[in-house]
Amino acid sequence: MTAALGYAAESAKAPLTSFAFERRTPGAHDVRIEIAYCGVCHSDLHQVRDEWGGSVFPMVPGHEIVGRVVEVGAHVKGYKVGDLAGVGCMVDSCRSCPSCAEGLEQYCEQGFTGTYGAKSRVGDGITYGGYSNHIVVDEAFVLRVSDKLDLAAVAPLLCAGITTYSPLRHWKVGPGQKVGIVGLGGLGHMAVKFAKAFGAHVVLFTTSPGKGEDAKRLGASEVVISKNKDEMKAHARSFDFILDTVSAPHDINAYLALLKRDGAMTLLGVPDTPPMLQFQHLIFSRRQLGGSLIGGIQETQEMLDFCAEHGIVSDIELIPMQQINEAYERMLKSDVKYRFVIDIATLKQAA
Amino acid sequence: MTAALGYAAESAKAPLTSFAFERRTPGAHDVRIEIAYCGVCHSDLHQVRDEWGGSVFPMVPGHEIVGRVVEVGAHVKGYKVGDLAGVGCMVDSCRSCPSCAEGLEQYCEQGFTGTYGAKSRVGDGITYGGYSNHIVVDEAFVLRVSDKLDLAAVAPLLCAGITTYSPLRHWKVGPGQKVGIVGLGGLGHMAVKFAKAFGAHVVLFTTSPGKGEDAKRLGASEVVISKNKDEMKAHARSFDFILDTVSAPHDINAYLALLKRDGAMTLLGVPDTPPMLQFQHLIFSRRQLGGSLIGGIQETQEMLDFCAEHGIVSDIELIPMQQINEAYERMLKSDVKYRFVIDIATLKQAA
Repeated sequence: MTAALGYAAESAKAPLTSFAFERRTPGAHDVRIEIAYCGVCHSDLHQVRDEWGGSVFPMVPGHEIVGRVVEVGAHVKGYKVGDLAGVGCMVDSCRSCPSCAEGLEQYCEQGFTGTYGAKSRVGDGITYGGYSNHIVVDEAFVLRVSDKLDLAAVAPLLCAGITTYSPLRHWKVGPGQKVGIVGLGGLGHMAVKFAKAFGAHVVLFTTSPGKGEDAKRLGASEVVISKNKDEMKAHARSFDFILDTVSAPHDINAYLALLKRDGAMTLLGVPDTPPMLQFQHLIFSRRQLGGSLIGGIQETQEMLDFCAEHGIVSDIELIPMQQINEAYERMLKSDVKYRFVIDIATLKQAA
Repeated sequence: MTAALGYAAESAKAPLTSFAFERRTPGAHDVRIEIAYCGVCHSDLHQVRDEWGGSVFPMVPGHEIVGRVVEVGAHVKGYKVGDLAGVGCMVDSCRSCPSCAEGLEQYCEQGFTGTYGAKSRVGDGITYGGYSNHIVVDEAFVLRVSDKLDLAAVAPLLCAGITTYSPLRHWKVGPGQKVGIVGLGGLGHMAVKFAKAFGAHVVLFTTSPGKGEDAKRLGASEVVISKNKDEMKAHARSFDFILDTVSAPHDINAYLALLKRDGAMTLLGVPDTPPMLQFQHLIFSRRQLGGSLIGGIQETQEMLDFCAEHGIVSDIELIPMQQINEAYERMLKSDVKYRFVIDIATLKQAA
């Protein structure tokens, strides 16, 4: 075992504080990464506060991890000491079910192993995430990271990036299409960038008039204030695809009505209370409503390579580890453009 | 104009009674059909009682029409006097929007012209349906009917048949697939027959234990009593496709949970109150929820030809015109296996 230092919550009601723990010694297929940056995902907050139930404490959150390889196991083939590397939402899966066999580990039928707060498939421990100085992961779940991009701004690609890239690819978003993105947060701002990069005409839906200018800077051609019924109506039956990144309760029927015949809308977030669905929006225009969960390892690598080629990163605000609790409060007020990233170098100063 | 005789409701609260009216003289592209049989669709009942709003009276219902051509316009190419012919839910559409251009007139962006109770695109009148002795329809909306099948049992194919055939084809149901059909009524019993004919392993979901034996006779390999949670659970994550034919309020989430990753469920009926949708069923297995409305004219012809080739018709109970009001009451109690068809020859006796 190797000593590790991180920030953890001791319970659902406790703030995150400095936490010493141990990582396993790298096995033959493992890579040890010295973490440089870790993005702060809204789901970190949900899980730290046990809002979804089932949280295990102490919890070291963080699944948007980038850093440098410092140690490799005897059989590791894809990485060498000194390489830049990343880790996302998963560190393992069953590797044998049909979903894993197709490279869709996020839908592993045995359940994938989450990067934090999950029972590890190696030994008996619980996984600890990226709010820490290093991590040990099987190379099958490690991603190659280009040195062409701002490393801190790459971190959120490991969750916010792949979560939006995957459905836009799966539903074949491309040139000639009119594509809607609902919500301009951590996910939404990446969705706008990707949909634009794929050649679509991008329309951003937001409840906040103040976000319009920024949405256009990020790649949206039009911005619709979703509370304005006339603005919404003007877009009726015109969208090929809509990606809904909002997890707060909201009316999905209003968006379904904006899809063309055979158009599709994909949901990324689960609201606390299940919304009502008006079936007629699906039936009378043969529309489709679907969902999507992060993305597989192979596609995450494809996404990172695409970002390196097209100069795409997240818009971030870099914070020291010590400001994480304050960052959570600001996140609750949507006071972040558009992702907090922790500078893990600041962790040493705390220790 | 030509004198016609039918059965009509004079208002939402009135029973259907004998009704004399006029049809247009066939134009150059029109076909006049002497109606032999007309199926009784549950939507006839909804519209006669104005349960969806907007009904126009007097109303002659009926959109599952079969009979024999008795007159053709000068430019009619596809039909001659003496041919068997059918008419379904539509008698016209704009014929120029993208949906019409693709042969998907049911999704006409101007709205298709319903076979009854709709404003006609020819002249100023309201359309009158198949509970009548003859009908005049543009040949573009007339279907060829084989003489190999029992003509009375063909009638329901024009609505119940195409409404189930179209989504099963659109979502490519075939051999090697496990397909669920929810509900065993007019639509459901046709869906079972088609899914079986397409080579799928068919599972019928019903709330009525008494329907099990019949479902197997119709082609289902398994029958699941949907109120039995254990029976439902045994099928979790195993279906490629589920076709939900039920329009009464019911829990769609229980069925979504039975789909495989990337599986799809299609809705055919609109409940009075919009059900709640638990997004996680879509997100955690990338499932799709869609809807479908009848089918286009080209596909309706394909369906009728398929039925002639495979000996598929509806299971019907033939009634005289005079029993239509009683038949509606029995339909409300699901006391029909599985479609009432009116013997239009009985109409003369009433006149």
